[in-house]
Amino acid sequence: MAKNKALTTRSDDFSAWYNEVIMRAELADHSPVRGCMVIRPNGYAIWEHMQQALDRMLKDTGHENAYFPLLIPESFLAREAEHVEGFAPETAVVTRAGGKELEEPLVIRPTSETIIYAMFSKWIQSWRDLPVLMNQWCNVVRWELRTRLFLRTTEFLWQEGHTAHATEAEAEEEARRMLGVYRTFMEEYIAMPVITGLKSDSERFAGAIRTYAAEALMQDNKSLQAGTSHNLGQNFAKAFDTTFQTEAGGIDYVWSTSWGVSTRLIGGLIMTHGDDSGLVCPPRLARYQVVIVPIYRTDEQRAAVVEAAERIRGELHAAGIRVHLDSRDGMKPGAKYYEWEARGTPLRIELGPRDLEAGTVVVAKRTGGKEPVPMEGLAAAIADRLDTLQQELFEAALERREANSLRGATREQLREFIAGDGGFVYAGWCGGAQCEADIKADTKATIRVLPDEEFRSAEAPTTCVWCGKPSVTEAVWAKAY
Amino acid sequence: MAKNKALTTRSDDFSAWYNEVIMRAELADHSPVRGCMVIRPNGYAIWEHMQQALDRMLKDTGHENAYFPLLIPESFLAREAEHVEGFAPETAVVTRAGGKELEEPLVIRPTSETIIYAMFSKWIQSWRDLPVLMNQWCNVVRWELRTRLFLRTTEFLWQEGHTAHATEAEAEEEARRMLGVYRTFMEEYIAMPVITGLKSDSERFAGAIRTYAAEALMQDNKSLQAGTSHNLGQNFAKAFDTTFQTEAGGIDYVWSTSWGVSTRLIGGLIMTHGDDSGLVCPPRLARYQVVIVPIYRTDEQRAAVVEAAERIRGELHAAGIRVHLDSRDGMKPGAKYYEWEARGTPLRIELGPRDLEAGTVVVAKRTGGKEPVPMEGLAAAIADRLDTLQQELFEAALERREANSLRGATREQLREFIAGDGGFVYAGWCGGAQCEADIKADTKATIRVLPDEEFRSAEAPTTCVWCGKPSVTEAVWAKAY
Repeated sequence: MAKNKALTTRSDDFSAWYNEVIMRAELADHSPVRGCMVIRPNGYAIWEHMQQALDRMLKDTGHENAYFPLLIPESFLAREAEHVEGFAPETAVVTRAGGKELEEPLVIRPTSETIIYAMFSKWIQSWRDLPVLMNQWCNVVRWELRTRLFLRTTEFLWQEGHTAHATEAEAEEEARRMLGVYRTFMEEYIAMPVITGLKSDSERFAGAIRTYAAEALMQDNKSLQAGTSHNLGQNFAKAFDTTFQTEAGGIDYVWSTSWGVSTRLIGGLIMTHGDDSGLVCPPRLARYQVVIVPIYRTDEQRAAVVEAAERIRGELHAAGIRVHLDSRDGMKPGAKYYEWEARGTPLRIELGPRDLEAGTVVVAKRTGGKEPVPMEGLAAAIADRLDTLQQELFEAALERREANSLRGATREQLREFIAGDGGFVYAGWCGGAQCEADIKADTKATIRVLPDEEFRSAEAPTTCVWCGKPSVTEAVWAKAY
Repeated sequence: MAKNKALTTRSDDFSAWYNEVIMRAELADHSPVRGCMVIRPNGYAIWEHMQQALDRMLKDTGHENAYFPLLIPESFLAREAEHVEGFAPETAVVTRAGGKELEEPLVIRPTSETIIYAMFSKWIQSWRDLPVLMNQWCNVVRWELRTRLFLRTTEFLWQEGHTAHATEAEAEEEARRMLGVYRTFMEEYIAMPVITGLKSDSERFAGAIRTYAAEALMQDNKSLQAGTSHNLGQNFAKAFDTTFQTEAGGIDYVWSTSWGVSTRLIGGLIMTHGDDSGLVCPPRLARYQVVIVPIYRTDEQRAAVVEAAERIRGELHAAGIRVHLDSRDGMKPGAKYYEWEARGTPLRIELGPRDLEAGTVVVAKRTGGKEPVPMEGLAAAIADRLDTLQQELFEAALERREANSLRGATREQLREFIAGDGGFVYAGWCGGAQCEADIKADTKATIRVLPDEEFRSAEAPTTCVWCGKPSVTEAVWAKAY
């Protein structure tokens, strides 16, 4: 793509826009390996900031990081019946190693329940060993037929938490707690509002008894499953014989959970905040929160401006702000603005000879508007603006989501809404798999979640939006990624 | 292994001791997958601290993190002749994925030069795009026949840096710079002295024109190759057609380097500092730098002691010290001491009713000695002691290495020294592969490095230790891991 060609607009072709934003901002690139992407430094920096923030939250809730093997004996997957049915068709299998055919093929982990439970069986003997609260950051491989950068790639990076508990209630509490941690992380860091709730059986994780999810509405009004948390009951414990001596002296299987979020979140960030100029990155996750662009004509001006810019860079850096001074020569300021806008940098400081005289700089916000700000106390003023922008991005996304949500829909409204601009449709559901399947066949919308209490409509629906029978729960429908 | 059984001593069986230290400290465990280990939280925390420190050093020297695919087309490896010869025999190969046989098998990366150069070819056009300074933290797989926890595992975690430059001199400078970064990291964080230098041709990385290494002497007087840095010349650039337009307007291949360290460093840490009570972890890398053990008999004592311990924990935590309060009930203080010693925790604070009265705590150092320290100003006193211990560990390791190094050896001395306790032997070398091979066949010692200037003997050797012909360089021999 030529560097100075305008991006396709979101309204023209959202999907083309998405790919162009990624390429223009150099977040990722296609690799020569089918369905595998390369995460370039601009994209990886966002992932590192996500990791740092979420890792702290996981540790603050008592979880420990560990690392389990990439390769899993094929027979392990088969021990949990639903699990193998769900994952075996999309595994990549190592059949040859060290120049020889393997006696038992090894699959590259699509997720690590099986290998982790095999280890838990070795480590857990007594109720005193519980709970076990572990997490790992790693790569997984799922052989997807249709792939999209960040959203669905053959290999992706993620964290997967795995816990074991003495009681069913504790496992349920943990699954719910981690869903809450995800929600906080997504709202506070990605500035991406989510609705949380239970998945219907058809969207349950293969091997779980209950799957919870956080769903976010993208700018094309399709929903992104941003993270999931599973109550696995005793399913895997039984498959891997993970037992423990109870406090009362008996023997029981452990109760367990697993939960994960992945590099898919970067796709969510792009589709939540990006605009027709490119990426818009929330300040808390931006590689550079501020870029300084010096403006000059003569060598003399250059010397004075770059010196002041260096000093400002140092001040902001000392204040803990991630700042970059773009002192590239032979490139016009306008071209630099254009590039940093495409990369989503939250704030830009423009600094020219007249600013130097006035003792001010011009601060331009990625989402629009610029104003002079005194050099005196600049770090605090910038920190303030970063906080404000972080908040504004969240509020704008929330407002957009609510403007594209329909509550208490009838069957016809559901159809029209989804066939039109789309969005979240809240309506009653009889709980029947047939209605769920019929709605999907008719509208392509699926149940994203049975929403948690705080997201439910003030007036609970009384009838199923499709069959008209009594509603057992409110559900949220949308087309999904 | 029973929890209260004494460890095998280092002098009895160093290899058994090594494995027992790992199991007792719960650093890692064997997995059901041949040659793959599980890194448990106590071990992974050390890796996280290593990553944080080294990552900062890599960023401070201008490197950016990225992520490249796990899977590499088999044909890519074959493009660089030496590289495929070196790595193909130990690859794990995916031949089936998504339920189908693949048209072209994919190898799990044993190292990522090939896939990264394929991408560099796409990204690099002009001298303006250079240098490219990238790094990735990831897992790699090499199908090893004989594996040992941390030291040689089928899958391991590492960082691999990959850079591209406009000139040969810049690439050489980068390869040397990163060797220096590794040395600083190993000395300042792992408290592990290393000697650096050039590898002989027989130990060169497959595809490099020069390989540099940092070698550390373990307590059994065998050398551990702790990190390597390669000047790859234009070998990979030619194989992947990575060209650029020079400033003068011509076309040239880029000059490149690669360099890496891995979870093997945890093995180095154990074998550098561990003692017959278990792990000894340098404070800068320890999961917990301090553990507080409360001592009490009555419930009343318990209440007072635990309250004070909590307060101390808070104070140390606020001062940035990684501290853990071991308030487990029903376990005697002595049993706790024993456990934290095995885990290598640098300092232990013992706190009982008499200490409370006196306004002091007892501080015990993992390497021996305990003393009362006033509660007033405790955080600063602890921070001091941590710094001191870090320094002491380095000095002790350096002293041990020097005591086990022989300079200016004759042929007989080389034989006797290696056949005896072993260690580093410095002597002249004619540069001939035959002498190198003969010495290895005779003594099992190999050339670890041709040492950098600062490690060379004051008097340069004049003759080859084996054939007696003129020496072209000093070399360091040792048995190696």
